[in-house]
Amino acid sequence: MKQKDDRTAHPVLRHWREEVPDDRLAHLIRDAARVLTKSMQTRLSEHSVSFGHWAFLRVLWVTEGLTQRELSDQVGLMEPTTFTALKAMEALGLIERRFKDGNRKKVHIYLTPKGRELKHILIPIAEELNEIAVRGLSESEIKTVHRAMLGIIQNLVEAGAA
Amino acid sequence: MKQKDDRTAHPVLRHWREEVPDDRLAHLIRDAARVLTKSMQTRLSEHSVSFGHWAFLRVLWVTEGLTQRELSDQVGLMEPTTFTALKAMEALGLIERRFKDGNRKKVHIYLTPKGRELKHILIPIAEELNEIAVRGLSESEIKTVHRAMLGIIQNLVEAGAA
Repeated sequence: MKQKDDRTAHPVLRHWREEVPDDRLAHLIRDAARVLTKSMQTRLSEHSVSFGHWAFLRVLWVTEGLTQRELSDQVGLMEPTTFTALKAMEALGLIERRFKDGNRKKVHIYLTPKGRELKHILIPIAEELNEIAVRGLSESEIKTVHRAMLGIIQNLVEAGAA
Repeated sequence: MKQKDDRTAHPVLRHWREEVPDDRLAHLIRDAARVLTKSMQTRLSEHSVSFGHWAFLRVLWVTEGLTQRELSDQVGLMEPTTFTALKAMEALGLIERRFKDGNRKKVHIYLTPKGRELKHILIPIAEELNEIAVRGLSESEIKTVHRAMLGIIQNLVEAGAA
């Protein structure tokens, strides 16, 4: 009973079910992304990690030693924002900023053992949340969504809008 | 030729096509949303409207006279953030904050003629961008995406995660 009430009351669901059901798909995708981000934020905060730090950690768990600019590009943030976030992550003992081969113009970003270790705690949390999110969707529906999202990104990149 | 290069070079597409093609769907949806937001931001900025103001305008074009708390809920922001945004929008002459029926505890938000007029400029821009985004997707794929996004939102709300 409580669940049903919550569902009806949640403003995002009310918008799409009752108020403006035929609103633009672009808006619906942003709403889904917002709910996904908020859910992940809640779970990350239990481990004192912000969503911004999570975005950088995810990239660094795949490739260490990227420059600040390469990291900015991959996370999709401006370099000053990246700089501020990395300074905070350094203070938290999650990353190290190092020069390489005597080149003092480019700073490269490496994980500390603590930053590396978080992978084994946070990735399972993200995987569990993803499983909850797609519950009830068939394999074929998930594939369609996957293809559609890539198509949307490519369309916008091609239109020079992204 | 240039388009192909841009597509290959765009970090979001590189991630999904080359680096981590089987990364989580939750992440892909957030990436699509991010590209959609950035595209809309670029277009809004040509009319001196921020993405935040656009979010409030969209709600107010449907229903004027909402309280600040109702607006916060619908846009999915905290009340202090809403307060700051509404103050800025008032200064720009887009909205008015008024008390109703002598109740000086709740402030209600109304559009100015200028705020109302922007609807006829900005909605067609959002519609055009939406059309560009879904280009090449069939009606049935769009329906599947629509249903899947609502399912994801509902799953997360039910899990108490949103």
